[in-house]
Amino acid sequence: MDTKIDKVGRYAFRAEPFKCDFRRSLFMGHLGNAMLNAADFHSEDRGFGVSYLNSIHRTWVLSRLAVEMTDMPKMYDKFFIETWCEGAKRFFTSRNYAVMGEDGKAYGYGKSIWAMIDTDTRQPADILAVRDGLILDYIETEKPCPINRPGRVTVSNPMEEVRQLDTTYSDIDLNGHVNSLKYVEHVLDLFDLDWYREHQLRRFEIAYVSETHFGDRLIIKRQQTGPLTFSFLLIRQQPDGTQHESCRCSLEFR
Amino acid sequence: MDTKIDKVGRYAFRAEPFKCDFRRSLFMGHLGNAMLNAADFHSEDRGFGVSYLNSIHRTWVLSRLAVEMTDMPKMYDKFFIETWCEGAKRFFTSRNYAVMGEDGKAYGYGKSIWAMIDTDTRQPADILAVRDGLILDYIETEKPCPINRPGRVTVSNPMEEVRQLDTTYSDIDLNGHVNSLKYVEHVLDLFDLDWYREHQLRRFEIAYVSETHFGDRLIIKRQQTGPLTFSFLLIRQQPDGTQHESCRCSLEFR
Repeated sequence: MDTKIDKVGRYAFRAEPFKCDFRRSLFMGHLGNAMLNAADFHSEDRGFGVSYLNSIHRTWVLSRLAVEMTDMPKMYDKFFIETWCEGAKRFFTSRNYAVMGEDGKAYGYGKSIWAMIDTDTRQPADILAVRDGLILDYIETEKPCPINRPGRVTVSNPMEEVRQLDTTYSDIDLNGHVNSLKYVEHVLDLFDLDWYREHQLRRFEIAYVSETHFGDRLIIKRQQTGPLTFSFLLIRQQPDGTQHESCRCSLEFR
Repeated sequence: MDTKIDKVGRYAFRAEPFKCDFRRSLFMGHLGNAMLNAADFHSEDRGFGVSYLNSIHRTWVLSRLAVEMTDMPKMYDKFFIETWCEGAKRFFTSRNYAVMGEDGKAYGYGKSIWAMIDTDTRQPADILAVRDGLILDYIETEKPCPINRPGRVTVSNPMEEVRQLDTTYSDIDLNGHVNSLKYVEHVLDLFDLDWYREHQLRRFEIAYVSETHFGDRLIIKRQQTGPLTFSFLLIRQQPDGTQHESCRCSLEFR
């Protein structure tokens, strides 16, 4: 295959009114899912999307995601998500995002780490073995993405249990488990409207540990780590009572 | 103002992967909100949208909605929502929707009833007084919308209380109260994945009685009215314990 397609993909979205919160800003859940959609379009267009991967019993799994916003698209704003792979190794690839306005201003940026797994064994699979390392033809290291990469989300005791919720039909996405951004949505839902009247989300970071399935119960624990920063531990409790860590998340407001 | 714009508006949407459920069908909540967005674009483009209405202390309020689907857009499908006003009287206007595929096939249809209110008094306002009855220039009665209009959703005892939930940040839309489609989503979430493996939603109908605000608790009562039909009563309980009916909804599966 040749590489006539740009390394960077650019996809148009709109902050339609009914994707916006009470402040008439796009919901972060919608923006995050738009990033996942852009990643999907980008990899599909270049031959390493899930349609092809599924045919060879492989799939992408999101491992970490950090998003940092200077501003959120407002009601009616058109915006573009640019996405590209910054690096690829055997077991992980790093994918960046820029959320751009029509006028060229940057609303914010994202950085993510993806793994590939074997869909039969659920074990890690070799990314560079796919189509003879095709992904390496699309590595873009020059384009700026001026935010910190997702690091370790450290959590320490004492953490306070703040919510339990049963997973429902609308939590589950095309992959058959809880949607990656739904965790962020559930965590953002722990704050009330008064909080959002005074604060904007500056950055979130999430590290995925294990997939939550329909029927699991999510237990959310919180720790305030600064005046405007919070860490969360999300535990999934299976119907038989077994508990596993699902993901950890941190939020930073301004 | 002249009426050079078509009476029917047509707006493009995509069933992006991360708007799809585990069956890789578009979530009904996304489709319903896309209908509301189409209605907003249609009315804005024709001079009777909420931007203008807000300037004269008026707004649209959705009173009833019925949606009937032969099929749902699948992952990656592009689709169009066509919307038009079928009639307008002093206190109500009826707006129709057709959800069309690229190949011209109809996925389904919707019918809705909207009222106008005074944003200061929250009392009904005269639709025909806005811009000298401008909306009447856009009434389209010929275009087919072959589904039954939303009727009375009748509920009768015994109804079983099936869920209580606190309203959260992500329930609240740009209007400052629980999003019209969130009620439908909460009701659809009462069914498990096994149900959705076997059944598809054929029709839903919802009648809005009073707005649910942040901090209210939603109490959902259910009655099975046939093998594949259900009625729901949604009660909002204010923080002081006062209860009011919020809306009633019916679902029909196949």
